[in-house]
Amino acid sequence: MINVGIAGATGYAGKELIKVLLHHPNARITGLYSTSEEPKAISDIYPEFRGKINLPCNRLELKELVSKCDLVFLALPHTISMDIVPGLLGAGKRVIDLSADYRLKDPKIYEHFYKAKHKDESGLKESVYGLPEINRGKIKNARLVANPGCYSTAAILALAPLVALAPAELGAIIIDGKSGVTGAGKKMAPELLFPEVNEDFKAYKVNVHQHIPEIKQILSKLSGRKIAVTFVAHLLPLNRGILETIYVIKNQKSKNPCLPVGRKNQNLNALYKKFYKNEPFVRIREEGDFPRLKDVTGTNFCDIGIKADSDTLIIIAAIDNLLKGASGQAVQNMNIMYNFPEGAALL
Amino acid sequence: MINVGIAGATGYAGKELIKVLLHHPNARITGLYSTSEEPKAISDIYPEFRGKINLPCNRLELKELVSKCDLVFLALPHTISMDIVPGLLGAGKRVIDLSADYRLKDPKIYEHFYKAKHKDESGLKESVYGLPEINRGKIKNARLVANPGCYSTAAILALAPLVALAPAELGAIIIDGKSGVTGAGKKMAPELLFPEVNEDFKAYKVNVHQHIPEIKQILSKLSGRKIAVTFVAHLLPLNRGILETIYVIKNQKSKNPCLPVGRKNQNLNALYKKFYKNEPFVRIREEGDFPRLKDVTGTNFCDIGIKADSDTLIIIAAIDNLLKGASGQAVQNMNIMYNFPEGAALL
Amino acid sequence: MINVGIAGATGYAGKELIKVLLHHPNARITGLYSTSEEPKAISDIYPEFRGKINLPCNRLELKELVSKCDLVFLALPHTISMDIVPGLLGAGKRVIDLSADYRLKDPKIYEHFYKAKHKDESGLKESVYGLPEINRGKIKNARLVANPGCYSTAAILALAPLVALAPAELGAIIIDGKSGVTGAGKKMAPELLFPEVNEDFKAYKVNVHQHIPEIKQILSKLSGRKIAVTFVAHLLPLNRGILETIYVIKNQKSKNPCLPVGRKNQNLNALYKKFYKNEPFVRIREEGDFPRLKDVTGTNFCDIGIKADSDTLIIIAAIDNLLKGASGQAVQNMNIMYNFPEGAALL
Amino acid sequence: MINVGIAGATGYAGKELIKVLLHHPNARITGLYSTSEEPKAISDIYPEFRGKINLPCNRLELKELVSKCDLVFLALPHTISMDIVPGLLGAGKRVIDLSADYRLKDPKIYEHFYKAKHKDESGLKESVYGLPEINRGKIKNARLVANPGCYSTAAILALAPLVALAPAELGAIIIDGKSGVTGAGKKMAPELLFPEVNEDFKAYKVNVHQHIPEIKQILSKLSGRKIAVTFVAHLLPLNRGILETIYVIKNQKSKNPCLPVGRKNQNLNALYKKFYKNEPFVRIREEGDFPRLKDVTGTNFCDIGIKADSDTLIIIAAIDNLLKGASGQAVQNMNIMYNFPEGAALL
Repeated sequence: MINVGIAGATGYAGKELIKVLLHHPNARITGLYSTSEEPKAISDIYPEFRGKINLPCNRLELKELVSKCDLVFLALPHTISMDIVPGLLGAGKRVIDLSADYRLKDPKIYEHFYKAKHKDESGLKESVYGLPEINRGKIKNARLVANPGCYSTAAILALAPLVALAPAELGAIIIDGKSGVTGAGKKMAPELLFPEVNEDFKAYKVNVHQHIPEIKQILSKLSGRKIAVTFVAHLLPLNRGILETIYVIKNQKSKNPCLPVGRKNQNLNALYKKFYKNEPFVRIREEGDFPRLKDVTGTNFCDIGIKADSDTLIIIAAIDNLLKGASGQAVQNMNIMYNFPEGAALL
Repeated sequence: MINVGIAGATGYAGKELIKVLLHHPNARITGLYSTSEEPKAISDIYPEFRGKINLPCNRLELKELVSKCDLVFLALPHTISMDIVPGLLGAGKRVIDLSADYRLKDPKIYEHFYKAKHKDESGLKESVYGLPEINRGKIKNARLVANPGCYSTAAILALAPLVALAPAELGAIIIDGKSGVTGAGKKMAPELLFPEVNEDFKAYKVNVHQHIPEIKQILSKLSGRKIAVTFVAHLLPLNRGILETIYVIKNQKSKNPCLPVGRKNQNLNALYKKFYKNEPFVRIREEGDFPRLKDVTGTNFCDIGIKADSDTLIIIAAIDNLLKGASGQAVQNMNIMYNFPEGAALL
Repeated sequence: MINVGIAGATGYAGKELIKVLLHHPNARITGLYSTSEEPKAISDIYPEFRGKINLPCNRLELKELVSKCDLVFLALPHTISMDIVPGLLGAGKRVIDLSADYRLKDPKIYEHFYKAKHKDESGLKESVYGLPEINRGKIKNARLVANPGCYSTAAILALAPLVALAPAELGAIIIDGKSGVTGAGKKMAPELLFPEVNEDFKAYKVNVHQHIPEIKQILSKLSGRKIAVTFVAHLLPLNRGILETIYVIKNQKSKNPCLPVGRKNQNLNALYKKFYKNEPFVRIREEGDFPRLKDVTGTNFCDIGIKADSDTLIIIAAIDNLLKGASGQAVQNMNIMYNFPEGAALL
Repeated sequence: MINVGIAGATGYAGKELIKVLLHHPNARITGLYSTSEEPKAISDIYPEFRGKINLPCNRLELKELVSKCDLVFLALPHTISMDIVPGLLGAGKRVIDLSADYRLKDPKIYEHFYKAKHKDESGLKESVYGLPEINRGKIKNARLVANPGCYSTAAILALAPLVALAPAELGAIIIDGKSGVTGAGKKMAPELLFPEVNEDFKAYKVNVHQHIPEIKQILSKLSGRKIAVTFVAHLLPLNRGILETIYVIKNQKSKNPCLPVGRKNQNLNALYKKFYKNEPFVRIREEGDFPRLKDVTGTNFCDIGIKADSDTLIIIAAIDNLLKGASGQAVQNMNIMYNFPEGAALL
């Protein structure tokens, strides 16, 4: 049984962490912290927790975190984690950071996308990108896990088999991503008011979204070649879930007659199934069958469907942005780090 | 053809005024003003207006308002109108105020509900409550119309025939009101963020809502007796529309065997139809038939259904909170004030 | 460990039963049955179950139910349960029926509201109304539990302390109920299509809803007097949750100066807290604090807030219609029947 | 003033036609017809029309249509129009068909996508594809206009300048389309029930949608080359609106250094603006600015934004599927056919 703390407990990811961890057999929540809310009982902030958890949500303070927790989840806005992580690691704590602060290995790219100079390059070097399907071995012993972005999780899982096994065959990669509103975090912004989002749909950060360098970094490393992607994010009028429709164009210069293992769909589905055969949270659909959001919301699964049409491959991946895209994946990482059953509290 | 200005043009009611007035044969929008947005073209703030209206939205200034407009619609947050109205009236302009500033005749009640001292008691005395079905004659010649609150409009229209014709028979009056989110205005508030409202439903300002004194003031005047109401407001996860379910309990002390004109539903429906027979924007349903929101959204109608059950009368009224509950009614008032056809731009 | 079957596994309540029972430490789902879907794996009907449960959903047949299950949950449309229950009881099985077939003790009232003659009057006599807060003792040994209706659950829990402790003080009782769309069950009806419900709100079955006799039967028994209620149901454009705003008018003939224990709110809240002090799934709010839907969706709780204003008492109760209003309550009943911890799989 | 009839008046497109035509200065609705509803007053079917239109909605009969109308709008399910059109044309009437029956010039392709043999090949030859921006001249004198599909309208308007001006430069074209639920028509289907669509998002008819041949036919004709597209349709949990995110990959074999007129965005925006400079219902955004659904819902506009990134061009087009995607465009066609102002009842 370990003691865990949640910094940023009142945001959407923090709240989801509480919900998941309340059912964990090996972890006990011992501290809740917020940078935005006045200190009070978490069940006064969120009455749904009455009778379930009886803890105050305090102001974030390193000292208290250190004294109360073995492992700390940081579910803070970007650029805040890097102020706290060095102190936590220095005190011998392990950290799972749900922000973007430790995902991008190149601090210049971080600065470009997050408009802040990186303050902890040593942490950046040490951090392990917390996508279990790619990095399980390293996560096991990590002191600092950089929990992946929500769009990135779906995109990387959808493309990993292709870039790993057949990079030379790939031409343009288009990721058309759609996310529910909790993906934006719980922040005041006029464009997130109910009447603005409801009955509306729009693209945003068109091909300049901060998850692009993250996707490129991980896919390029996996494939051994530079992988480029075009990515457009869209805002869905619903609370949770990400669905990405991904189009992979055949490399016109490739001599092979078609995409990786032939145009025949079952072969591609089989290839994906084999690639993920030991993964508890990736489910590959049969040929011609695609996931919808409802198949994954409330779960830690990433569901993937594939269709090959002439020179274009269509891949659809769906996750719950608050679970596999954030808090569920963070707990999956914790389970790996502490040798708990990987599905504990998640299945 | 008159020149009209809209102060508060970027809020929900202001934007709706633009939409309605764009189709008005006798009114021309000559000025748009905002207290919150930086000055720029209204079509840059709201791209839906591109190609439809080509006007800047300027900072609110009395002088410009006076020079450009014959009639001014004030769609400002409460407590701001009373700063501007005296100057407008002094300059010979006519004003339709969509805020609450000129609705409550007693400044002490205003202060209690709106947390601000009233600054224009002479305007308050002069103002005419702009519910055409009750006050058409006075509206005609008014310089200053206090456009009714959205909940108040539905409640008063639903109850007017009863309180006017049979006040002695009425016991407790319960108004269970439900409103779409635009009813709260376009303001930043954490509880109005999409993920907070979507898939949620709640009561708010339980029996302390600021429309209660407005409803009581008008109904009491109509009936010649003090009318009390219990009113609970609720927030619907949708953009526009108000539906109120109203319960009138028989006065247990009344000697009459039952409610006004007998338990027989058709009689009550007939009484309502007669009461509103010349009203272009009130539609009374047949016995046992009730309006839903969709019947009125996008229109200036108030639809009313009635059912009498033993000692309880059930009345359901529906309006579009942005039209009959705000901007549509404001234009209806303008039409009356200027002898335009009452349904101009509204039917 | 008991073996349980679910008849009607593909409806909203049936699906929710699967979700809850998958986490139950003492119950194993051994059979799934449907009257509407073609037989196939439940994870082919609902892909969200892939990797979680690997059972076929078969055609409903008594013989198979009897051979595979100790306890059967019937989540079938009304009027079907009564065909199956006698066979199940005869075979020594225990039954929790989520339909209305065994709730109303008077078969004539059943016939009036459900438009079908009752076929199992002996079952009707034996059945226990499955509201644990009222009937825990009887549920313990019941062979046949009639799981309460969703609106009824919230209404009865909200009113039980009053009708039990102070029936003479009560005048008119008004229940203004609002339910999410899953409350209507998964049935084809034009008025349940997305574009019909979305951005709409309406009352339905105005004071003729089939839960009225159920509420009256239980409250009258509790109070020892005939309790009448006015009840209007409304359809919310959201998936799950019921919120009821209840108005209790003071009996004008009562000599007591006011409602039960004085107008002072804290007294009423204290009275409610005392009444439910041992109840794991009822949470009473502090004075002036009211539940919203989000506080209870996804949980088995009923949250209740109370406010006393002059001669009117306002009570707001919220539940998740699929959990405390159906499947969660059914599992709570199972837990009681089998001496499992009452919160197993529910907390 | 012409007399117009609407066949299929109770579906979503039919109802929208009524709403638009009620404000038309030169057209009078003289007949309403349905194939699904029992004959009754349209205001009894849709109470929102009470006080606005007082016409029965009758069973569809050729004879009555012929006797009452000069022009007939057919807003019927696919495969029904072709039974009626020959009779209408034979009687000297003009027809605007909102179904797909007269859009695809090759009856084999029609049969493949609509699962029905075409019965009126002569009508098919004569029909004019009713996209005013492409075919205004032919529409003017047409007896039979095939009103375009909703997805097709947005896709063709978004791609027309490119395929017309620079077909040789274009490689793969990917259309990621998202539509509100009214796009599916008012039909009973379990997957269109509110709880199925709400809080969900999914792809459907992945690259096999029936609008694909329509888009290809029109774009190929425009460009003089065979244009292929990949198209995935998605269902948005909202009532109305289509937004398409379109990706155009540079033809890797083209010698030109980049897309049509250079990577510089303003050039492309300028090219689009010039292409549509006389079009009243196409609005091109400035560089880096993209439309959202709300900019066009309730209007007949198609708004288009463009961004050129390295070898990929991103185009986003938005329309209201019931207006520019169906009924608004049908009225625009009528205005052209009868020399009415093209924006009559639409601006």
